[in-house]
Amino acid sequence: MKNQINLLPEDIPTKWYNVLTDIPQPLPPPKDPDDGPSRIESLPKLLIGECLKQEFCTERWVDIPEGLIELYLRAGRPRPLFRAEALERELQTPAQLYYKGEFFSPTGSHKVNTALAQAYYARQEGYERLTTETGAGQWGTALAYAASLVGLKCTIFWVRAVYNWKTSRRNFMRLLGAEVYPSPSDQTDVGRALFNKNPRHPGSLGIAISEGLEDSQKNPEAIYCLGSVLNHVLLHQTIIGLETKRQFEKIGTYPDIMTSCLGGGSNFGGFILPFVPDVVNGGKKVRFIAAQSKAAPNLQGEYRYDFADHAEITPLLKMYTLGHKVEMAPIKGDGLRYHGCSPIISSLRHLGFIETVAYPSDEKYVFDRARLFIQTEGYLPAPESAYSIACAIDEALKCKETGESKIIAFNISGHGFMDMVGYQEVLKL
Amino acid sequence: MKNQINLLPEDIPTKWYNVLTDIPQPLPPPKDPDDGPSRIESLPKLLIGECLKQEFCTERWVDIPEGLIELYLRAGRPRPLFRAEALERELQTPAQLYYKGEFFSPTGSHKVNTALAQAYYARQEGYERLTTETGAGQWGTALAYAASLVGLKCTIFWVRAVYNWKTSRRNFMRLLGAEVYPSPSDQTDVGRALFNKNPRHPGSLGIAISEGLEDSQKNPEAIYCLGSVLNHVLLHQTIIGLETKRQFEKIGTYPDIMTSCLGGGSNFGGFILPFVPDVVNGGKKVRFIAAQSKAAPNLQGEYRYDFADHAEITPLLKMYTLGHKVEMAPIKGDGLRYHGCSPIISSLRHLGFIETVAYPSDEKYVFDRARLFIQTEGYLPAPESAYSIACAIDEALKCKETGESKIIAFNISGHGFMDMVGYQEVLKL
Repeated sequence: MKNQINLLPEDIPTKWYNVLTDIPQPLPPPKDPDDGPSRIESLPKLLIGECLKQEFCTERWVDIPEGLIELYLRAGRPRPLFRAEALERELQTPAQLYYKGEFFSPTGSHKVNTALAQAYYARQEGYERLTTETGAGQWGTALAYAASLVGLKCTIFWVRAVYNWKTSRRNFMRLLGAEVYPSPSDQTDVGRALFNKNPRHPGSLGIAISEGLEDSQKNPEAIYCLGSVLNHVLLHQTIIGLETKRQFEKIGTYPDIMTSCLGGGSNFGGFILPFVPDVVNGGKKVRFIAAQSKAAPNLQGEYRYDFADHAEITPLLKMYTLGHKVEMAPIKGDGLRYHGCSPIISSLRHLGFIETVAYPSDEKYVFDRARLFIQTEGYLPAPESAYSIACAIDEALKCKETGESKIIAFNISGHGFMDMVGYQEVLKL
Repeated sequence: MKNQINLLPEDIPTKWYNVLTDIPQPLPPPKDPDDGPSRIESLPKLLIGECLKQEFCTERWVDIPEGLIELYLRAGRPRPLFRAEALERELQTPAQLYYKGEFFSPTGSHKVNTALAQAYYARQEGYERLTTETGAGQWGTALAYAASLVGLKCTIFWVRAVYNWKTSRRNFMRLLGAEVYPSPSDQTDVGRALFNKNPRHPGSLGIAISEGLEDSQKNPEAIYCLGSVLNHVLLHQTIIGLETKRQFEKIGTYPDIMTSCLGGGSNFGGFILPFVPDVVNGGKKVRFIAAQSKAAPNLQGEYRYDFADHAEITPLLKMYTLGHKVEMAPIKGDGLRYHGCSPIISSLRHLGFIETVAYPSDEKYVFDRARLFIQTEGYLPAPESAYSIACAIDEALKCKETGESKIIAFNISGHGFMDMVGYQEVLKL
């Protein structure tokens, strides 16, 4: 058997899978807080029309428009599934390890899958410009890329504390033609108020979201885009799991365990959701394990309504949350540092379909396991993906103890070429 | 038609193509200089046995060992060929542009294709450690990767002036388990003599080569590896062109123009050589254009015997050369900064099969064209690959003037995720 399983471009999935139709209990809808203006009513101004529709979609399968499939092909999809035989040998485990190569991404992460979809729909709906915020920078880069490919402008408000030192990623966004502002910026009312008081204000994701939203709401040619958490984002990301499923079918195998890192939930959801109906309705047994950081173990929080953002601009969403005002320790896997988990994943967790593990926030453990992966499999994972690897290795070592030859699948959601500082600092290279 | 043309892992070429059998005149052999010890006699100590055999191979097709095919699959081969429709539209050219995605490489460049082969043979021949030098860092990373995958140690002597600032790439090599020394180092006699005089000596490729050679010659468990120029290196790289050829066959197309950047010649050769027999023997007309820098336009030099290295350790090779002691201006596309061109490409140039173009060494022109590529196609090329892009765009614009719908193929030999400083400085981002 070959250690790389791939599909041809002509075999790319042409529909996304909508898990909403298969979750045993209806998803609790978003709602307004008791006080203040209605967030629900402002949703149509906040979201791309087609994305808002998809948010409450009742069809199991959603057509991927032909023009968007072309964009997915241009982004190098389908992506390979690899058998990690060298890692298995190193671990001396009877388990079989498979990893999805989402790191073969033009911008470095899985975020392109929804960025392309949102950019595509936004252009169709006549918008000329996309606005967004970014924290770690992966989402901002993906949206800059998508905007460039479909011929839209793109404005990114980037948390200043990160903007200042991630010069490579910042320059990449500019090369892609995006306007990138350190947030708080002097481009919006909310930013200006803070910027004028302190031009070196470090910023926060909450402030950056507010700036992106203000920009789009004041300028009708612009629309705001979101990179995780929401149902339509997870829908777009199911392309990952759909490909993976076909790849397993091709070799006549089915996973016993699926794991990936989880921040807001778009990577984890995109990977596992297409397998969920087999478990919920089909009698299959798959353990779905979310790999998190102790800095933000949101799936170990409370299951309740909470805001998706610090500034309380969004509706309340029913989700596992640490509280939208919680302070989280800084980690290199910054994409996992989010207070809440997407309502879809939260609901599945609540219903007992999803396990979670949280790794120490000094990240030594996960980076050590990433190093083992790098030295055996040769690919350089993003810091976030180090969590997926750590969990997969943990499970493979359990199999070594029990002698079980389980099939373990994990997703490497991004590459680490622009994140070597993280490796250097944690592993003291 | 799809804009991505790919092959399945099961369709990967299983033989390399050896152009030596098809060049109309026999390749002038390497020879010794009039003075000093025989370099020819020392070749068996200098090269891996199988590579030395391949250097003078008389068979048209050379089997790729099965274990090495597995390694190629693990490295993500075959790699896609893309139709650059968006770039065509932007240029309003009737030409069709196709680019090979060699940038989907675990270490960032095409160098893995020969690194894996050399590491594979070295392990088969009982060596425990690989030694080499590196300038820009791409070759060192590729060899560190290959050594790690086959379970060998790896020692890299890296020109100190580059080692000092390319921290990301240096840490990547260390993550892969390699020992990396700034050269001149205190690890060898030749290095120590210079290092003790000046511990901040900036080094040179010539010194680093001498250190790598001394290390392997004094330690019988180690063998030295070379990343370009030689026949066996180009042989290994033909996997690029062989895949490309099958991809064109798949869509019933054949290129009129093929271009790629050229330093020592391994990327350019790997891309074009499988098409050469169709031109030499088969009546096809293909313009092969080498894209170079005016800092090192070696194909515009003299065709004569010259040393391959500054320190005169190698035999004399018949090649186009600027002279092995020439001073070359620093450029961001450092991989193109080499005084001579591989004997195979030089011979084909001498026989009139290869054209060359050299771009200004301030690199504004090539980086501007790379930006156009990034904003239309979305992939971030290495600085070296910016030269391939510039040449392809030049030819596409000529087609616009003449109204010819030529098929233009170019290779993007590497990605630029670790080279954003170059883009920033040249384009003033």
